[in-house]
Order: sequence, then structure tokens, then C-alpha cells
Amino acid sequence: MSKELTSRATDYSQWYNDLVIKGELADYSAVRGCMVIKPYGYALWENMRDQLDRMFKETGHVNAYFPLFVPKSLFEAEEKNAEGFAKECAVVTHYRLKNDPANPGKLIVDPEAKLEEELVIRPTSEAIIWNTYKGWIQSYRDLPILVNQWANVVRWEMRTRLFLRTAEFLWQEGHTAHASKEEAIEETKKMLEVYADFVEHYMAVPVIKGVKTANERFAGAEDTYCIEALMQDGKALQAGTSHFLGQNFAKAFDVQYLTKENKQEYVWATSWGVSTRLIGALIMAHSDDQGLIMPPRIAPLQVVIIPIYKGEESKPVIDAKASMLIKELKSLGISVKYDDSDNARPGWKFAEYELKGVPVRVAMGLRDIDNNVVELARRDTKEKSAVSFDGLAPYIKNLLEDIQQNIFNRALAFRNENIREANSWEEFVNLLDTKAGFVSAHWDGTSETEEKIKEQTKATIRCIPLNNKQEEGKCILTGNPSSQRVLFARAY
Amino acid sequence: MSKELTSRATDYSQWYNDLVIKGELADYSAVRGCMVIKPYGYALWENMRDQLDRMFKETGHVNAYFPLFVPKSLFEAEEKNAEGFAKECAVVTHYRLKNDPANPGKLIVDPEAKLEEELVIRPTSEAIIWNTYKGWIQSYRDLPILVNQWANVVRWEMRTRLFLRTAEFLWQEGHTAHASKEEAIEETKKMLEVYADFVEHYMAVPVIKGVKTANERFAGAEDTYCIEALMQDGKALQAGTSHFLGQNFAKAFDVQYLTKENKQEYVWATSWGVSTRLIGALIMAHSDDQGLIMPPRIAPLQVVIIPIYKGEESKPVIDAKASMLIKELKSLGISVKYDDSDNARPGWKFAEYELKGVPVRVAMGLRDIDNNVVELARRDTKEKSAVSFDGLAPYIKNLLEDIQQNIFNRALAFRNENIREANSWEEFVNLLDTKAGFVSAHWDGTSETEEKIKEQTKATIRCIPLNNKQEEGKCILTGNPSSQRVLFARAY
Repeated sequence: MSKELTSRATDYSQWYNDLVIKGELADYSAVRGCMVIKPYGYALWENMRDQLDRMFKETGHVNAYFPLFVPKSLFEAEEKNAEGFAKECAVVTHYRLKNDPANPGKLIVDPEAKLEEELVIRPTSEAIIWNTYKGWIQSYRDLPILVNQWANVVRWEMRTRLFLRTAEFLWQEGHTAHASKEEAIEETKKMLEVYADFVEHYMAVPVIKGVKTANERFAGAEDTYCIEALMQDGKALQAGTSHFLGQNFAKAFDVQYLTKENKQEYVWATSWGVSTRLIGALIMAHSDDQGLIMPPRIAPLQVVIIPIYKGEESKPVIDAKASMLIKELKSLGISVKYDDSDNARPGWKFAEYELKGVPVRVAMGLRDIDNNVVELARRDTKEKSAVSFDGLAPYIKNLLEDIQQNIFNRALAFRNENIREANSWEEFVNLLDTKAGFVSAHWDGTSETEEKIKEQTKATIRCIPLNNKQEEGKCILTGNPSSQRVLFARAY
Repeated sequence: MSKELTSRATDYSQWYNDLVIKGELADYSAVRGCMVIKPYGYALWENMRDQLDRMFKETGHVNAYFPLFVPKSLFEAEEKNAEGFAKECAVVTHYRLKNDPANPGKLIVDPEAKLEEELVIRPTSEAIIWNTYKGWIQSYRDLPILVNQWANVVRWEMRTRLFLRTAEFLWQEGHTAHASKEEAIEETKKMLEVYADFVEHYMAVPVIKGVKTANERFAGAEDTYCIEALMQDGKALQAGTSHFLGQNFAKAFDVQYLTKENKQEYVWATSWGVSTRLIGALIMAHSDDQGLIMPPRIAPLQVVIIPIYKGEESKPVIDAKASMLIKELKSLGISVKYDDSDNARPGWKFAEYELKGVPVRVAMGLRDIDNNVVELARRDTKEKSAVSFDGLAPYIKNLLEDIQQNIFNRALAFRNENIREANSWEEFVNLLDTKAGFVSAHWDGTSETEEKIKEQTKATIRCIPLNNKQEEGKCILTGNPSSQRVLFARAY
């Protein structure tokens, strides 16, 4: 009996949760808003992390590690940043528990162990890092600093969703320091390209690169660049952000450097991050009613081989044939599992690996072997075919690349079909309510208008696309003049 | 001008701090007891982590991730564990800050955002993990669970030392669940062997494998196995522990499984961990008055090449020659840096890479190239030699292995010279006060005696070595009968 999944049409949100939990990516925990990332989900994250880490290192970055805690006085130093995160901070106030005199075996917070200064658990690390950089930077020779950190962060969200929005999540945060504004902006853009490259070529999720409006900017940034993806239910998802921080943190923490011309100047900053949230994007971009669909390049498992035993005597023959194939696949760098467990029938296993999104399934029985073939099933299209053993491993290698390309193309076609222009308020609201996707519309450029549109429709401006076409028009809400269309959507 | 280092003879403790800070491994932070791990130190940790992770995976383990927070009611469920860690817990009591009405621009903890139940920041994760395992384990088919976690943990230590004892540190913690006691004990021992293998063959630090006495056991364990290393100042350092937890956590969290015979039984547990503390061990085992000595197999940088320019015209010739060597070294999997920066003289660079412990230094000038040689300096012995360019890359590869072996042998000889037998109290105290190292002595097996010895001498029983020789004797303190010697030392 395979695990039952809610279909997307029945309840999209429940379908998502079913995939996460029954697909064994993650589970709820005893801590409000925090999840347990299960081994299958963590293996996916490891593959994503390792690839991103290679890309960061290829672009000259190194890793470091900064404290989990931010003393309150540092946290509040950059006012906009503090204001943006103060409402969702986990705060450590004590450093000891003691026995509860009223309840033997129970513990209470020891009131005598109150901290002089409260510690905020990092919701992001600009404050603690720029306070550190002050000690690292004296002259232009100390610049640039190109540091990344892999870490856990905590934001006390009220409504949480597995992977998409959790109180604690895993991420990387790059924090760079530069001698000039131009260099910092160049870095901000470069990392946006790295993210787009990763999300499109490894996660197979097409993205739109753009800039956020002032309303949607990171707290403390001068400019926030972003990549926006489209989920199958038509909602947008911000997949990564790269911030040009100007001199805001340098001024808040007094980080100056001596220029070649012997002058003191404030340092320029960037920060950029992606998180385990990306796993939510991956699930909602590709999966179907039978379960997850993993992009081959980052799949925790690329190929599963399932033997179809008929009687005891078939076992050694099939096992021997499988073992040859496994060896060949591994020599091509392909991850493979042979599931010869006897506690489930082949049909159950088929459903299970479909649910887990393993890109390629190989089934082999005695008759197949007699005919020198196996049955190959690709997860993305569910097509099955009999494929010859001769050259099977390289055939599978190509098939994995085909699948990678196919799921990207499919997501790209869906995304492109779902960007629509609206030229009036009525049309705008109608599109939001009846169609999935992005709505491209004119906006008068003010935060007030953006806020009103959000209040009335729940749609936000996802981004002003990079290299956006300039075009005269009128704001869909106010009718005021506008020089370009921007992308609206309801979003995760 | 090179950085000045305190010598070991002058002030061992200051020498250690100088190496950590001036060697750019880590630095103090604005948070009491927490450190910043700098890029060079983090690259070392990455190499250690990656190798350990490979070894864990080769022995059948997978990674997962559990919440940073442990609700107080879970934390206190296993009483001994709770008692052991309650005194050093960072506790989150609130989830929001708000503007301080009395101080514009300042924040205060919002009293209205008090948590109903306090959250302990994990000092170790048995509680949150066993509470999770309860949902994962129903029958013997769900066992064993072989999970590891890479994470940060917090223990509010009063006296902190960079790497050796910090409030927050990075570590891995394995948490396994088994159907039988025998299997759990086997796992505990297997992971001790993995640790010993890693520390000896990668960190080049010899260790003694043993079991802790009841006093020194992990809070909540039935047995704690450990590896103990000896530092150059004669103090011992616990380098890793592997715990057999019996059914303590299974009982505290009611984790039972259905056996093949259809009976409900409590599950058996192990946990095992090593941390960034190992970096402290590595520093103190090998380094000298000129700086760090990195074991080649985990060194962040294995080879540095320093050009000796005489006049502008020598640059292209030397650069071209170096570039060939770099290519060859990289093709052999050797990490190499070419330091042709013009902001320091060669002598300064020599001292800098000595301080950082880079195993092999290659210096090359025009005259060397004319003679078809380079000057090679090995960090461990500081020997210099002129070595021919022909076959230079493989020569360096062998040299790196030589250095690895040599620093291990050196540390092993030092360790073996510093295990001494004491047969009376006087001899025992005298050895502790006048000699470095372990003292092997008879002990009557009681916690009281062990406690008294600790009070009087600050020495603790580091371990009862595995496969310890059985030998009749009398306890050095009480004169009571003893069946074996145990290893005492003052320790980090």
C-alpha cells in the first residue's frame, strides 16, 4: 500500500505538506515553528550547499564563522536593520537553570543568572560581522574582504511553513567589504548572477532577475537585487537576494580605511543570502501529484534499481547483473541505490521512489535479462522504455541530463505563459484573481501606491526586472505617469 | 617586521593565544566567551569536517538537522543529562524587542513577548533528538538509526579559551538507535576507532583510547569511551568521546519498538562527538616558538611558493617557472599559493608562513632557476635544501607525507616518554609537580578517592585504557586493593 498524497487540485497547500513529510524531507518538531530536516532532505541541502560553496570559492570568497549571539547594543546600532528585525527576535536573557524548589525533578530559570545585556539570536549577521570588520580593516590593503558564512539563523515568524518560513533555518550569508561604491555594486550584481546560475542550472528553476522597490528592500540596504521564481499555483517566490548596503553598516560601526591617498573613508558593503527556503521552491516548481521531482544535478539519489524476483533462483542472476550496472554507474559519478529489500513488493517500491522524486528508475527481472534489456522509467514524464544493457550506463548519464533540461524547459514554459500585461485596474485585479502568475503593469513609483495595491489585492511588486524596457504609461491604480512596467504577484 | 610571538618557555598560555590570533585562526568577539573563526581557521575546520564526514558516511551514517532550541520540559526529561547541563544553559525567554520609550533609538525586551515555555539553546541534542526518534521508531525494521548532525552548540562556560573552551562551538554529534545492547556498544566502540583513526592519521596526534570513570562520564551515559591526547606542556586533552547511553533516553522519552517476536522493548542509544576544540589540540601538539605546524593532510594550505625577485627583469622568468610548478602540484591534488605580492619582503613572508604552519615553502630566485633548483624548507624541522626542478612536484608530494609521519612520530615519542608509573602518594605528587604527562597509578575504584585526589592535586583520571593490563596493587591514596593502573593527568 503506497502512501496517499493529496492532489494539487484538491488542496495545494496540503499537497505541499504531504510531499515534504511523506517524501521524508522534513518534519515538524517539538519546537514551535522549527523543523527537523530528515536525512533525505539534508542530503539534498548538502548537494545544494556544496555546489553553491564551489561557486562562491570560484568567485574568490572564503568561509568564516561568527557568533550566534548579537549583543543588544550591537543589534540596535544600524537603526533600519534593527527596526526590520526587532519584532521577530529570539532573545537570550539568562545563562543558567536551577532546580525548582516547588517541583522536584523540574527546572526553572535561575533569576540570579540574568545577563547584564541581552543577546539576540542572529536573524542575520551584519551587526556582529561589521563590528568584527572594524578590527580587520585599517587600510585599502585590507580590502576587499570576501567572506561567506554557512549558519543557522532565527526569525520568530508567526505563521510558519516547512522550508518556506521557519523560525530557525539554515542559510549562507555573504558579507563583503570594499574600497569603492562601484566595486561593491559590482559584487552585489555578481552574486545575483551566481544565484541565478545556481537556481537555473542546478535546481532547474527559471528566475527573473530584478531590483526590489524601497518597500521590499532588506532592512538596512540601499538596494536589494533579487531572483524571483514562479510556483505551480501561480504564486511567486523570492529565491535569493543580494544587497548593496552602501556605507550604512560602516557608519553604524565606524569602519573606515586609509585610502592610497592617505584619507580616511567609510567602507562599502554588500550582503547576500539563500536558505533552505530554496527547497520549498524546488518542490513547488517541479513536483506532481505522485510526489517530488528532483533535478538530477542535485538529487540526493539519481538512480534506483529495483529487482523483480520471481522465485529464489532468479535472485543471484539479477543481483549479479545489477552489481555490474551499479559499478558502471558509479564510475560515471552517478549515485545509485539497489533496493533489494524483501519487506515491500516492487509496486510499492515504484510508488515510494516516485514519491521521493528519484529521476531514473531501473527495473529488472529474469525475462528482461534474457532479452538483454531493463525497464527504464524517467520520473519527470513517467515514460517507460525497454533499454538494452549494451551502453546502458552512458545512456542513463545522458538521460539524467535530458531530465534536467526537460524539467527546466517545462518550468520555463509555464513561467513564460504566466506573465501577463494589465493595462487597467480592472484588468489587473481580474488577472490576479483568475490567472496564476506575474502581472506586468505600470506603477507610479511611490511607496504609497505600492502599499495601497498590496492592501487591496495582496499582490506585491516582486521586482523591477534588470534591463527593464522603458515605456511610457499610466499607473494602474492612480493613473499617474509611469516610465516602466514592474512585475506584480501574490507571493510566498 | 614579523609578528612577535611569546615563547613557550616564557608563557605557554600566552604562546597559545598568540598562535591562534597572530596565526589568524580565530579572534575574540564582542560576545563574552564566543570567538570568531577566521577564514584560515575555518578552512582548517572544513578540511577536518570533510574528512570526518567521509569517515562517518563510509561507516553507514547519514546527516540530518534538528532544532537549535530545546523546550525546557524536554530538556529536563532525562534527569542526569539535565542536571549535568542545567548550570551552563543559555535560555531564550522572549521573542521580540521593542523601542525603549525612555531612550529613542534603543531597544528593550518586550515584556509582552514572553514565551510560555522557555527554550534552552542546545548544549547537546539528545533530548530534542530522542523526542523526535519517538516518532520515527515503531518496529525493529526502523532500526538501527545512524544519524549525525553538524551544528553549533552553546555551553555557558565561566572561563573560556579560544577553541579549547568557548561558550558557542561547532561540532558534530552522532545519535544512533539500536535494537540491542550489544549492537549499541559495538557502535560506541566503532566510532571511538573512527575518532582515533582521524586524530592520529589526519591530525597526526597520537591518542590513548580508554573508558572514563563514573565521575568523568557524560551526563546521562552508561559508559563514556574517550581518546586522550598529550599536549606539549604535559597536560592531557580529551579529544573525542563516544557514549553508550543504555536505554536512559529511550525511557525518558518512551521510545519503544516492536521486536521480531512481537514484544515492546526500549531502544538502545549511543552518542558521540568531536568539536572545534580539536583545533586547540592540534596547535598544542605540534607547534613551536616560530608558530603553527599544520599536518599536511588537513593543512588549509600545503605549499607556498615565494619568488625572490632581483630587479624587474627577473619577474617574468620566475613567474613562468612557478606557474609550471603550480600546475604540476595542483594536478597531484596539492594546495598551493604563489605569494608574489609586493607589499612585503621575502624574509617577512618566510616568517609569516612559518607562523601559519604551511608545511612546505618553496623559494625561487633567478640564480636558483639557472641552477635548475629551488630552495625547499620544511616547516616541521625547518631544514632547507636545494632540490632539482626535475621531478619536483612528486618530490614535494612525498615530502608532505614525510612531514605528516614525522610530526606524528615526534608527538608519539613525546607522549610515550611522558607516561610514568607512580607507586606511592609521594611519588605520584612529585611526578605531577615536576614532570609533564600521564601518571599511571593504582586506584581503589571509588568515586570518593578519585574526588579526593582531584581536590589535592588537580589531577583527574583521564581514562582506564582499553585492554588495560590487569595487575594487583594498592591505591596510591588509600592503600586499598586495586586490580589495575589507570591514567591520571592534569587536563585542559
